[in-house]
Amino acid sequence: MPIIHRHIATLQAALKPVRNQQRIALVPTMGNLHDGHLELVKLAKQHADIVVVSIFVNPTQFGVGEDFDSYPRTLDEDVAKLASVGADYVFAPSSVEMYPVLPPPTTIRAGAITTQLCGQSRPTHFDGVGIVVSKLFNIVQPDVAIFGQKDYQQLAIIKQLVRDLSYPIDIVAAPIVRAADGLALSSRNQYLSADERQIAPILQQELQRLAQQLAAGEHIDKGFNTLITDASERITVAGFKIDYLEIKTAQLEPVIDRLANDGENKKYTAQELIIVVAAWLGRARLLDNQLVTVY
Amino acid sequence: MPIIHRHIATLQAALKPVRNQQRIALVPTMGNLHDGHLELVKLAKQHADIVVVSIFVNPTQFGVGEDFDSYPRTLDEDVAKLASVGADYVFAPSSVEMYPVLPPPTTIRAGAITTQLCGQSRPTHFDGVGIVVSKLFNIVQPDVAIFGQKDYQQLAIIKQLVRDLSYPIDIVAAPIVRAADGLALSSRNQYLSADERQIAPILQQELQRLAQQLAAGEHIDKGFNTLITDASERITVAGFKIDYLEIKTAQLEPVIDRLANDGENKKYTAQELIIVVAAWLGRARLLDNQLVTVY
Repeated sequence: MPIIHRHIATLQAALKPVRNQQRIALVPTMGNLHDGHLELVKLAKQHADIVVVSIFVNPTQFGVGEDFDSYPRTLDEDVAKLASVGADYVFAPSSVEMYPVLPPPTTIRAGAITTQLCGQSRPTHFDGVGIVVSKLFNIVQPDVAIFGQKDYQQLAIIKQLVRDLSYPIDIVAAPIVRAADGLALSSRNQYLSADERQIAPILQQELQRLAQQLAAGEHIDKGFNTLITDASERITVAGFKIDYLEIKTAQLEPVIDRLANDGENKKYTAQELIIVVAAWLGRARLLDNQLVTVY
Repeated sequence: MPIIHRHIATLQAALKPVRNQQRIALVPTMGNLHDGHLELVKLAKQHADIVVVSIFVNPTQFGVGEDFDSYPRTLDEDVAKLASVGADYVFAPSSVEMYPVLPPPTTIRAGAITTQLCGQSRPTHFDGVGIVVSKLFNIVQPDVAIFGQKDYQQLAIIKQLVRDLSYPIDIVAAPIVRAADGLALSSRNQYLSADERQIAPILQQELQRLAQQLAAGEHIDKGFNTLITDASERITVAGFKIDYLEIKTAQLEPVIDRLANDGENKKYTAQELIIVVAAWLGRARLLDNQLVTVY
């Protein structure tokens, strides 16, 4: 069984003697662990000798009216699952332990990358992510930290945070883990009714269709916007309320629609794009994304 | 002689084997070292086994039109001085080493404490301090860091940053080192002409006078504002252009002037106040401060 630490000081005391002789991995989570999280831990074990999993429902990354209070908290089950994959330490602090002053006066903002996509509908979300991840980095001082690719924008923001703040931490991205029908695993999937759960995989199916269209070069004649509009309509008709559906470069920069800009020269150089989507289905806000190489 | 590191990676490689067996102290400086800096190093040696002195004229803490370009850079002399007090490592990175992207997209802001005093006339200054100090903390991962009390607001901000971001670093404040005539040592004192250098100690003399007035309780009858106004007039007449002169609590919170608020009850409980001043004398912007306990 992993050893549970509720306090910063005891976790640090436990890690101090082994630091530098052994590589330490951090897997930050909000608990309510599913197989996607367990894959993060398995990946962490490949990159380090000691795996610390933090379980903390971070208040600063929830906006007003969001699901902070109802977010599922299942520590006992989480610890049992973590035992099955060999996590060494669970860091499960109280809110007061993490935030003696809440909200903390100090803010961290990872620049323009935070204001698009999820940052549009959740304007304070990534500031909260920035501060809690920085705190966890400073508390654990890991050699490597593992983040899931499902939260693609979060991953990009954390990579930038690590670069801009000179954290000596390798950031490892873990592939999205999906249910058999393709739905990306998420703690928020349990907000779905049985009927909604049947509909939910359509989101991933439409991303795949879009990726195939891009790989086949359909955007060269039709333009990105037409493909996006068509996919949005299908997703909306299926019962989703789309927050955003966008095609970006893998670095989350804008793609240039050459149909509009350069009708003569319909040749693209190979580049990796990402299709990113956030959509509500009932009470659940679902995220998904799909990387695709286009020419 | 201290070992000079120009690169993050080589400094970290040097520190890694000794970390946790030995306590590491960081003394952040912008170089052009004077006896005040050397006292920081001596204090660091009392708190740690290994002392790292960073020398980096940090572009992000200078505003437009400030003295970034003309700030004195004297690395060879600095290293010789550091040898005399037993510093172990000098970290003297290039701007590109510290900021691959300048300015970095990520910002750190230590809340309302940054917008008063120096933050009024230098609105981006403490954001620059916040990011460079965070980077130095992450690069060096010291057990203790030493900051001079002359930059009192900076010290308060760094203490808050450490608390809010959970840095496992003890912050040690070093007393102001003064010339024989009372002028607080500062690299910027060399911007003073010979005549200005004669006038400069008046700043400290007026702070001392104010402190004596407060210690004697003169504010109880006169109010803080009258004392401040009188001191400001004397400082201005001497040839200074005052940026600010304020009386705050030691935590840089507002003091309540009970003369105005509560004419009946002119009793104060003991509290530690700080008088903080920034004033231009010729090309030099001088800082000073004085703690005083009042009743």
